[in-house]
Amino acid sequence: MSLTETKNLSFVLEGIKKVKFEERPIPEIIDPYDVLINVKYTGICGSDVHYWEHGSIGSFVVREPMVLGHESSGVVSKVGSKVTTLKVGDQVAMEPGIPCRRCEPCKSGKYHLCINMAFAATPPYDGTLARYYRLPEDFCYKLPENIPLKEGALIEPLGVAVHVVKQGGVVPGNSVVVFGAGPVGLLCGAVAKAFGASKVIISDIQQSRLDFAKKYIADGTFQPARVSAEENANRLKEEHDILAGADVVLEASGAEPAVHTGIHALRTGGTFVQAGMGRSEINFPIMAVCGKELNFKGSFRYGSGDYKLAVELVATGKVSVKELITGEFKFEDAEQAYIDVKAGKGIKTIIVGL
Amino acid sequence: MSLTETKNLSFVLEGIKKVKFEERPIPEIIDPYDVLINVKYTGICGSDVHYWEHGSIGSFVVREPMVLGHESSGVVSKVGSKVTTLKVGDQVAMEPGIPCRRCEPCKSGKYHLCINMAFAATPPYDGTLARYYRLPEDFCYKLPENIPLKEGALIEPLGVAVHVVKQGGVVPGNSVVVFGAGPVGLLCGAVAKAFGASKVIISDIQQSRLDFAKKYIADGTFQPARVSAEENANRLKEEHDILAGADVVLEASGAEPAVHTGIHALRTGGTFVQAGMGRSEINFPIMAVCGKELNFKGSFRYGSGDYKLAVELVATGKVSVKELITGEFKFEDAEQAYIDVKAGKGIKTIIVGL
Amino acid sequence: MSLTETKNLSFVLEGIKKVKFEERPIPEIIDPYDVLINVKYTGICGSDVHYWEHGSIGSFVVREPMVLGHESSGVVSKVGSKVTTLKVGDQVAMEPGIPCRRCEPCKSGKYHLCINMAFAATPPYDGTLARYYRLPEDFCYKLPENIPLKEGALIEPLGVAVHVVKQGGVVPGNSVVVFGAGPVGLLCGAVAKAFGASKVIISDIQQSRLDFAKKYIADGTFQPARVSAEENANRLKEEHDILAGADVVLEASGAEPAVHTGIHALRTGGTFVQAGMGRSEINFPIMAVCGKELNFKGSFRYGSGDYKLAVELVATGKVSVKELITGEFKFEDAEQAYIDVKAGKGIKTIIVGL
Amino acid sequence: MSLTETKNLSFVLEGIKKVKFEERPIPEIIDPYDVLINVKYTGICGSDVHYWEHGSIGSFVVREPMVLGHESSGVVSKVGSKVTTLKVGDQVAMEPGIPCRRCEPCKSGKYHLCINMAFAATPPYDGTLARYYRLPEDFCYKLPENIPLKEGALIEPLGVAVHVVKQGGVVPGNSVVVFGAGPVGLLCGAVAKAFGASKVIISDIQQSRLDFAKKYIADGTFQPARVSAEENANRLKEEHDILAGADVVLEASGAEPAVHTGIHALRTGGTFVQAGMGRSEINFPIMAVCGKELNFKGSFRYGSGDYKLAVELVATGKVSVKELITGEFKFEDAEQAYIDVKAGKGIKTIIVGL
Repeated sequence: MSLTETKNLSFVLEGIKKVKFEERPIPEIIDPYDVLINVKYTGICGSDVHYWEHGSIGSFVVREPMVLGHESSGVVSKVGSKVTTLKVGDQVAMEPGIPCRRCEPCKSGKYHLCINMAFAATPPYDGTLARYYRLPEDFCYKLPENIPLKEGALIEPLGVAVHVVKQGGVVPGNSVVVFGAGPVGLLCGAVAKAFGASKVIISDIQQSRLDFAKKYIADGTFQPARVSAEENANRLKEEHDILAGADVVLEASGAEPAVHTGIHALRTGGTFVQAGMGRSEINFPIMAVCGKELNFKGSFRYGSGDYKLAVELVATGKVSVKELITGEFKFEDAEQAYIDVKAGKGIKTIIVGL
Repeated sequence: MSLTETKNLSFVLEGIKKVKFEERPIPEIIDPYDVLINVKYTGICGSDVHYWEHGSIGSFVVREPMVLGHESSGVVSKVGSKVTTLKVGDQVAMEPGIPCRRCEPCKSGKYHLCINMAFAATPPYDGTLARYYRLPEDFCYKLPENIPLKEGALIEPLGVAVHVVKQGGVVPGNSVVVFGAGPVGLLCGAVAKAFGASKVIISDIQQSRLDFAKKYIADGTFQPARVSAEENANRLKEEHDILAGADVVLEASGAEPAVHTGIHALRTGGTFVQAGMGRSEINFPIMAVCGKELNFKGSFRYGSGDYKLAVELVATGKVSVKELITGEFKFEDAEQAYIDVKAGKGIKTIIVGL
Repeated sequence: MSLTETKNLSFVLEGIKKVKFEERPIPEIIDPYDVLINVKYTGICGSDVHYWEHGSIGSFVVREPMVLGHESSGVVSKVGSKVTTLKVGDQVAMEPGIPCRRCEPCKSGKYHLCINMAFAATPPYDGTLARYYRLPEDFCYKLPENIPLKEGALIEPLGVAVHVVKQGGVVPGNSVVVFGAGPVGLLCGAVAKAFGASKVIISDIQQSRLDFAKKYIADGTFQPARVSAEENANRLKEEHDILAGADVVLEASGAEPAVHTGIHALRTGGTFVQAGMGRSEINFPIMAVCGKELNFKGSFRYGSGDYKLAVELVATGKVSVKELITGEFKFEDAEQAYIDVKAGKGIKTIIVGL
Repeated sequence: MSLTETKNLSFVLEGIKKVKFEERPIPEIIDPYDVLINVKYTGICGSDVHYWEHGSIGSFVVREPMVLGHESSGVVSKVGSKVTTLKVGDQVAMEPGIPCRRCEPCKSGKYHLCINMAFAATPPYDGTLARYYRLPEDFCYKLPENIPLKEGALIEPLGVAVHVVKQGGVVPGNSVVVFGAGPVGLLCGAVAKAFGASKVIISDIQQSRLDFAKKYIADGTFQPARVSAEENANRLKEEHDILAGADVVLEASGAEPAVHTGIHALRTGGTFVQAGMGRSEINFPIMAVCGKELNFKGSFRYGSGDYKLAVELVATGKVSVKELITGEFKFEDAEQAYIDVKAGKGIKTIIVGL
C-alpha cells in the first residue's frame, strides 16, 4: 500500500515515546458549516514534543491513543451544505481549536478560554497529523496567493505571537524585550515590530539564536550573564538605551531567571506577558510587581481575530515566516522529526502531509 | 510650655524604635498654590510601623531624622495667593504625595508613579505627624459637612482601596474575593461593593477579623485550612457558589499562601491585584496565571481621581469608615500608638493632632 | 374554544394597524440546546407600536404577517436533549435575539451586532406574543425566586438600559444626565445609580414624568424651557451643581433638542450615548463634539452579559422594576394594549400570556 | 536695521487681515524649568489663516493684537536653572500649548483638555511667529540628528494626526478611510499606516490632491460623485473591497457630505473621528450612528505622548514629512504666505524664522 492511497492515515501517540501510524476513518461532514481538509503541512510544537516525551502536560494526560499535531495548513477537499466562504481546492491555514460558542467566554469575545474547547492534540481530542481533518468553515483561513501553503503551517505559531503581543498591549513607540529566541519568541518580536514597537530586544542564552534573531528581526539582542537578575536587567537597559525600563516584556522561554530579569527590566506601569511554558511554580519578585505597579499577564493560545491578523501580516509582508522553516520531514518520518525537535535542531520543523 | 502653644511640634523617627518630639519651623508658603494645614487627625499605617521598627522599607532607608505619618486630615490655616478653592478654616483630607507634574507618568495620568514623587514619611520626605503641613491646593480635598474631620483621616486608606479596586477593574455583577481583613482589605471589600460587586468574600486567618468583616461589609467570609492552596480555593468556590471562579481577587495580606489561593480561586481571564506588602520574592504558581490567562497586577498608592472618589463614597454613604476607627491617642502619646498597632490591637488607630 | 386550549395562539401583525389572532404550530425542538417556553408576560415596546402603526422601522419592512412582541418571560415547557442548565417548570426571562455565533461580531464579543441576527418581531422573524416560543438554552435566564415572573418581562428593557450604561462607561462618582423619562430612560437612570453614579439627573418635557422619575430614582430633574440648547444646558448645570459639565449623557428620548442640550451639558472629554430612536437625520452641533473631544456613541439592543446583569440587578435589589408596570391586558385584548401605549398611557404595559 | 539684529521681531495680527511686524521684548526666563527658543521654522495652519481672515474662531475672538503661528521648530538659546534635558544649541520641535498641570484633565492624562490652557496664537495668548518664544523644558522635543530642523516644524501637524489616529483606536489589520487630503488628512493616513492599518483609503474632491495622496501614502483613493452619501459610501466599499465597511474613518475635511459618507462607509461597531473644522452645526445621520452602534469621537489638538511619538515616527522613517513642505517664505514675507495658503496653494507652507 502506498501512503498516498491510504484513507486517513494518522500519526498516533500511544504512550510515552510510543507512536504508530494508523488508518482511521475519514471524518464525515455532519454539521453543514463544516469542511474537510486534506492536511498538507504540519509544524511541530514544543507541546507536541512534550506529550510525546512525557505523555502529559499538567493536568492534560494522554489516556487513549491520540493523533498528534496542531500547526497545519491544507487544501479543502469537501464542504458542508451551508459553507459559503470556501470551496474545494482552497488552500487554508487551520485554526485547530473548536469552541462551544455558547459559554460565557465564547459569548464575551474570549472563545480561546471556552470551557468546552475541543483542541487538536490536547487529550482527548485528536490532532491534525492525519491525511484529513474536519473543521468549521470559520476556523479555516483562506491563504491568499502570495502565501505558499507550506508557510500556512506557520500561521499557528504566528497566531500565538499575535495573541501575546495583543496581551502586551504593544503600541507604536514602545520598547519591547522578548525572552527566548525560539519560534514563538522570534515571531513575538516580529509581530511587535509590525505593531509599531520602536525597539525590539531579544534575549536568549544561546549566541547562535541571538545571531538568528538579529538577522531576522531584532533591533538588539541580549545574552544574560551569570549574575543577579537585577544586574542583568540593568545591563540590558543600559546597553539598549532604555534607562527608564522597557514598556513591554514578552516572555517566551519559560525560564525562571528570564521572568526575574524581565520584571526588573520593565518601567513602572509596564506590562509583562508570560507566554513560555515552564515549571508550574517559580520564585517570583512579587514586590517589584507591586511597587512598580506592573501588569503581569498570561497568554493562552489565540482567539478572536488572531489567526485572521496573522494571515494578513504575512500577506502584506509585515511579518516573514519562511526563514523559520529549518527542517522538513516526510509524513512517514514523523517520529524522526520529533526526535530532532527534541534535540533542539533548527527553529521550526515541518512534516509534509499526504 | 503647653503642647498647644508650640510652633510646629513634630513626631520624629531618629532610628530604629527611636522617636522624639521636636519643634520645627512652621512651613512657609512659597508656591502661590500652596496651603498650610493644621493637622488634626492622623491614622497609623503598617508602613509607618515598619519604618519605626526596621528603619527602612526595601530600598527606602531612613538616613536622617524623619517626621512620621501620612494618613491625615486637618484644617486650612493659611492659603497661597493663587488659591481659589480653599479658604482658612476649611476641613480637608490631605493627599500626602506631591508629584513633579512634569515627567511622563505625571503627564499621562499616572502621577502616583511620578519619578520625582515627594511622599510624606517616605525618606527623605517628612510626614504629617506635625502641627502644620504644607500641601498644594489640589492635594487637599474639602470635606463636606457630613464627614467628620476625624473620619477624614481615613480617606487615605480608602484612597488606597479605591485604587486597588480600580486596578481590579471591578464592575457591577462581579464576584470579588479579598484576602486580608485589615483596614485596607476591609475597605477594598467596601469599595468593591460600592462599585457594584454582587458578592464580596473576605478571607483571613483570624476568626475575629472575619466576624468584623461580616458585620462590616462581607457577603461571606473564608478561613483557610492547613491544606493546599488548590484545596482551599476549591472550598472557597464551593462554599460561596462561585464554581467557575471569582472574577477578581484583591490581595491585602501580603501572605504567600493567600496569593496561591487567590490565583487558584480565580476564573479564567480573571484579575488579581496585589496590594498587600510582604516578602520581596515568593513561590508563585506562574503556569496557573498563564493557563488561565490571568491578569496579575500590582497596585501602588493612589492616583488620579482616587482621593476625590474616596471622599465622595463616604459623603454619599456608599462606604462607611467610622467603624474602622478602634483606637485614639493624644499626640504626646504617639509612641504608645505605634506600640499598640505593632501589637495588632484594633483595626485603625488614630493620633489626635494639636 | 377557550384560549387556554389553543395550541400556539399568536398575535399577528398583517399590515398597518391590522392585527389578528392565529393558531400556529407549536415550535419543535430541533437543536438539542433549544428549549420551548410557554410565554407568560410580554411588555409592549415603542418599536412594536411603531411596526403596528407604520408597518416598518427604517429599512425593516413587515412584508409577511409577523407575530409581535419581544419583551417576555415565561415557563420552560420542554428542553432539548443537551440542555443542562434548565428544566421544565423553570421561570425565565427571554432574550429574544439569536445570533449566528459564527460571524466576526459574534466571535469578538459583540453578538448583538451579529450580521445574521434573528430577532423577535423584527421582520422577517416572528415575535414572542404567542403561547410558545423557542429559544436556545443560553438565551433563557432563570429567574431567582425573589423575581416574580411578571417582572421577568421587564428584564428586556432593563437589558437595554444596562447596555446603554455600559456604552456610557459610567463609573462610580460620575454625574449622569438622562434625557427622556420613558421606561428606557428611567431604567438607564436606575442602572447608572447601580453602577455608582453620584448624581443622576433626568430630563423630560412632561412634569408628570419628572415627578415619577424623582420618586423612582432621580437625584434631580430638569424640564427644558423654550430657549436655546446652550441656555438649557447652562441652567441644567447650574441647577444641579455640575458646572464643569456632566460626565455622561444618556439620550433616551430621540428628540433633536435633547441631543443638543445633552452635548452642551457634557464636560470636555465626556460621553454621550444615543439610545432613543427618532428621525434618521437631525441638525447636530458637530464642532462642540470636536472641540470638547466628546465621545458620541450609539447603543443597539443588548449583548454579552447584559441580560445576566439585568437579572442580577433586580435579584440583588439594586434596581427595582415593579413600579414601572402601570398597565396589564389579557392576551385577547392585545390590540387594545397597543392602542393605549400609542396614546401614551402609563409607563410600561404588559400583556398576560396564555 | 537688519531683521536679524532685531530683539524679538514678531508677526502680529491686529484685526481682520491687518497684520504688522512689531519689536517686542525678549521673554525672560522666570520659571527655572523654562527654556528660550530661537524660532527657526513655522508652518501655517488653517486656524492661523482663519484668525487672519475672520478675527475669530468660534468663541475665540482676537481682541488685542496677537502674535500668530504655532507650528514651530527652533534652537535653544537659553535654559532655566533646573533644566536638565536640554542645552543651548539643541534643535527642538515646540509643543505650543502650556497646560496648568493642576486641573482634573491635566492630572488624569488629558492635559490637552486643560481648563486653563495657554495655547499659542489662540486669544489672548501670543503665538510663535517671533524671533524668540519661551516654553517649559518638557514641551520642547529634541530633534535627533536625522530630522532636519525645517521638518521639525511639521511635528505639530503630525502630532495632530497622531492624536486623531489614537482617538480612532487604529490597530494592525484595520481598514481606514481618511476624508480630506490636506496636511492633516495626509498625515492621518501616514500615521494610520504606521499604526499597522492594512488599508488606508483617502478621499477628496480634488483629483490633484488624490494623486498626491496616492504617491505619498494611500493604498487607494476615492473621489465622491454628486450622488447620495449612501451611494458614495457603497461605491467606496466596493471599489476598495471593504464590503463589511471600514473599521475606522478619520474626517479631516470638515465637510458635511464627508461626514455622511464616512458614517455610511463604516462597519457596525466602527469608529469615526472628527478632526476637520467646519460649520458649527450640520445635518447628521444620527440613526445610522445608533443602529450600527458607532463610536463618533472628536479629536482636539494633541496630548500626552503625541509629540514624542510624532518625533519618533519621523526619526525611525515610519512617517515622512518632507514631501509635504511645498512652499517657503522669508519672515518678512509672512503676510504673502498667508495669502497663498488662503488661496489653497500647495500642501504646507513654511515661514523661515530670524
